[in-house]
Amino acid sequence: MPVTQADIDLAHRLADAAGHVIRPYFRHEHGVEIKDDQSPVTRADREAESAMRRLLDAERSGDGIVGEEFGEKTGVTNRKWVLDPIDGTRSFTVGRAIFGTLIALVEDGWPVLGIIDQPVQRERWVGVAGRPTTLNGVPVRTRVCRELAGSTIATTSPHLFGEADVPHYLALVAAISGGNPRQGPVYGGDCYNYGLLASGHLDVVCESGLQLYDFAALVPVVEGAGGMMCDWNGDPLTADSEGHVLAIGDPARLDDVLEAMHRITGDAHDHGDHDH
Amino acid sequence: MPVTQADIDLAHRLADAAGHVIRPYFRHEHGVEIKDDQSPVTRADREAESAMRRLLDAERSGDGIVGEEFGEKTGVTNRKWVLDPIDGTRSFTVGRAIFGTLIALVEDGWPVLGIIDQPVQRERWVGVAGRPTTLNGVPVRTRVCRELAGSTIATTSPHLFGEADVPHYLALVAAISGGNPRQGPVYGGDCYNYGLLASGHLDVVCESGLQLYDFAALVPVVEGAGGMMCDWNGDPLTADSEGHVLAIGDPARLDDVLEAMHRITGDAHDHGDHDH
Repeated sequence: MPVTQADIDLAHRLADAAGHVIRPYFRHEHGVEIKDDQSPVTRADREAESAMRRLLDAERSGDGIVGEEFGEKTGVTNRKWVLDPIDGTRSFTVGRAIFGTLIALVEDGWPVLGIIDQPVQRERWVGVAGRPTTLNGVPVRTRVCRELAGSTIATTSPHLFGEADVPHYLALVAAISGGNPRQGPVYGGDCYNYGLLASGHLDVVCESGLQLYDFAALVPVVEGAGGMMCDWNGDPLTADSEGHVLAIGDPARLDDVLEAMHRITGDAHDHGDHDH
Repeated sequence: MPVTQADIDLAHRLADAAGHVIRPYFRHEHGVEIKDDQSPVTRADREAESAMRRLLDAERSGDGIVGEEFGEKTGVTNRKWVLDPIDGTRSFTVGRAIFGTLIALVEDGWPVLGIIDQPVQRERWVGVAGRPTTLNGVPVRTRVCRELAGSTIATTSPHLFGEADVPHYLALVAAISGGNPRQGPVYGGDCYNYGLLASGHLDVVCESGLQLYDFAALVPVVEGAGGMMCDWNGDPLTADSEGHVLAIGDPARLDDVLEAMHRITGDAHDHGDHDH
């Protein structure tokens, strides 16, 4: 069934509930710990996800839930809600308001609604399949990018790429910055980079190691703004994408990005049937 | 002569004037260009520095001025004003409100007053020699850091270190994050990182290639909050520091930081007469 106004209203209320929990912890004692996967978590992460799950249990008890902190709840419908209470926990813990709450509604495996919410600066990007993406209610568009050289790429941290990923990432950086470190990647930012790309402020985001809860919400936001999200071969993102995520503001640059990433190592890659 | 209330008031008005120019350009057409040193500049940088210089010419015509965009004006007093209208121009151009306007008053070569101003989020750190640093008028303190392992380090971009700098930087990162990429450095942020360190949200900032206009304002802010600023040998920052800048929230960790940075390469370094 298509996304309804009730779905969108509920997604807003989930974001409101998470923000209400998160704001008082920002720049205050948040009880950071290191999880088994070595990533940080705080009381704000856990309590924000719990608040969202309580709402969903009350109002959509049949839908599945996948959350970063409390795992998967199997549902009885073809829908699940995918939650990351704080994407960018490190930014949160150091007091930078460039993290976000991610909320996605996934239908038959495909994200049809996504929210990136920055609760401190109160910025909310909303993407719904087939509709224009909005930032605080105002439609946004990705920007035109005539060539890769001199465009702007962002990624959270170079240390998050696996060893085999690094040559591809650096080849893309070289094609964009031409070896000028002052025009190199913009670092930090997590999900916030995808919102800025949707709003036309940067051209490419390239990351590795993203989980479903990290990227599901980004897809409707970026695509509803005219951009595209795909894996490092240009194929749609799935659980099998190894977390290799690309966001490209101007889809006309897709081939240039893929060529740059696979050029230096001489990798064979299948351009396949992605639409361009 | 010591810093007077009139000096502080003037520094606030300089920050106000710069912010007034910068805010309308944030996330709007800002006319970015690449300078001869390959760093970016926008109309916002140039117009904000001009606005500050006009104020200084009118009220402190005898003082020197050093600005990132319009160079040095020699004065007839022992004072100069050091201005960086937008430190973090790349963050500014991609729409992240974690850049800052830097204003320093340097007396006989030593920064005695510094402001880090974030004009979009309206956050202003003010440091004055001998007084507690404030954020929006409220005193702030760096935090205690009992050991380097597990503490938090920030730097703008790894690509900004020169080739000879990289082993030292990576040795420090290894001592802090123990090889866990999810506990690696927090990237991005420019001057904003030093404000967050002053407010007790992170422990170490390590950078290279900083100019006088990049670091002069940071010194009173960090030191007035209980932290220390020095070069990579633990010596006071001067024009001869090769832009090797360290900010350490808890000065008790200075030796650990220096040891970590110089351990792996077996470098001789002089602990000299820094106070600890």
